[in-house]
Amino acid sequence: MTRAVSIVEPILNANDQLAEINRSFFDRAGTFALNVMASPGAGKTSLILETIEALKDTYRIGVVNGDVAPLDAEKVAAKDIFAANINTGGSCHLDARMVNRALPDIPLDEIDLLIIENVGNLICPAGFSLGTHRSVLVASIPEGDDKPYKYPKMYRGVDVLVVNKIDLLPYVPFDLKYFQEGVRILNPDLKAFRVSCVTQEGLDGWFEWLENELAAHRAAALEGVAP
Amino acid sequence: MTRAVSIVEPILNANDQLAEINRSFFDRAGTFALNVMASPGAGKTSLILETIEALKDTYRIGVVNGDVAPLDAEKVAAKDIFAANINTGGSCHLDARMVNRALPDIPLDEIDLLIIENVGNLICPAGFSLGTHRSVLVASIPEGDDKPYKYPKMYRGVDVLVVNKIDLLPYVPFDLKYFQEGVRILNPDLKAFRVSCVTQEGLDGWFEWLENELAAHRAAALEGVAP
Repeated sequence: MTRAVSIVEPILNANDQLAEINRSFFDRAGTFALNVMASPGAGKTSLILETIEALKDTYRIGVVNGDVAPLDAEKVAAKDIFAANINTGGSCHLDARMVNRALPDIPLDEIDLLIIENVGNLICPAGFSLGTHRSVLVASIPEGDDKPYKYPKMYRGVDVLVVNKIDLLPYVPFDLKYFQEGVRILNPDLKAFRVSCVTQEGLDGWFEWLENELAAHRAAALEGVAP
Repeated sequence: MTRAVSIVEPILNANDQLAEINRSFFDRAGTFALNVMASPGAGKTSLILETIEALKDTYRIGVVNGDVAPLDAEKVAAKDIFAANINTGGSCHLDARMVNRALPDIPLDEIDLLIIENVGNLICPAGFSLGTHRSVLVASIPEGDDKPYKYPKMYRGVDVLVVNKIDLLPYVPFDLKYFQEGVRILNPDLKAFRVSCVTQEGLDGWFEWLENELAAHRAAALEGVAP
């Protein structure tokens, strides 16, 4: 006689299992980890550099760079904070295993905020959680207003959206309403900021959000609650 | 006794074998095929739409779209030329197999110029030839001047570079010399055009290059020489 067995626990794939292990490493060290994703040239590195500048006196920051060439890690290291480069060997995304293998080299106990810069790509990174607490997508005005419609998985999967290069809005065809409607359909509760890393416009809102997240994470850790 | 055997013929991988088969289909039909690659939002679709507009009275054009969502294929189909969409199932690149499977549905005998729009991605598409005669990379000014250094495989592998959104040069930090030096190191003979699909600046040079390629391909086909 066969009996139907209902499986209540979601079965995690190998990547998600490793992502959970990564998360427990972060939590044990009290590190808040952020996965930063974007298409090439949207401004991941610029946003990270601005964030370091704004928060480095308040928080101990570390950056792990998974981008194709070590150029970005050099820019970050010039800020005199912890910076590591994950050599993805030309891969199109970071995965939990790559982050896991890098963990022994990252002094998590000395890092409050770990920023993981993913590979510049709007497709593949969306499929691989890393174990970070929050994930942010950096969009950019000159990319065009149709990106939510074309890369729904990416827009659906992130916690916060930073729309960069807002200073270029007068110079490019970009229908903000059409863009926002696409975002709303895919991810109605998505927190969004419009910024320019060149003019600094709107960055304060992003810093404030991040500081609130850091404070909430610290409070939850002190209470022993999984954040 | 063992003897060293030198293998003179390059051993093709499965993708390259299928790419050669695709090429023979194109050649048999007298179709010139172009692989268009870029990061998301650099302007692949805009360049293709401009190209259709400029050349559709002289050449029979078909477009195969491999982008993630069918949005682009709709835009192209609105131009009243042959347009097909390859559903990559969320894949990050086209490969020769996907193109091969689409071939029975493409009326190559009625197409002089087949434009294949690859998935918006600067990494994965560089690893998979499709069997096209030429490949073009659409870069864009707001992406930043460091892209050749960060995506060397893509810049090394293409025949022609179209630098789009040149009208935004006054508004973004972009060191043209630094960019060009990166391109020169990777691909010294790369043919390059600076254009704006918004202001139309520079597009004539691109059209002229493409028409010359089409003419050379046709002449070679008439002489029975593999182009």
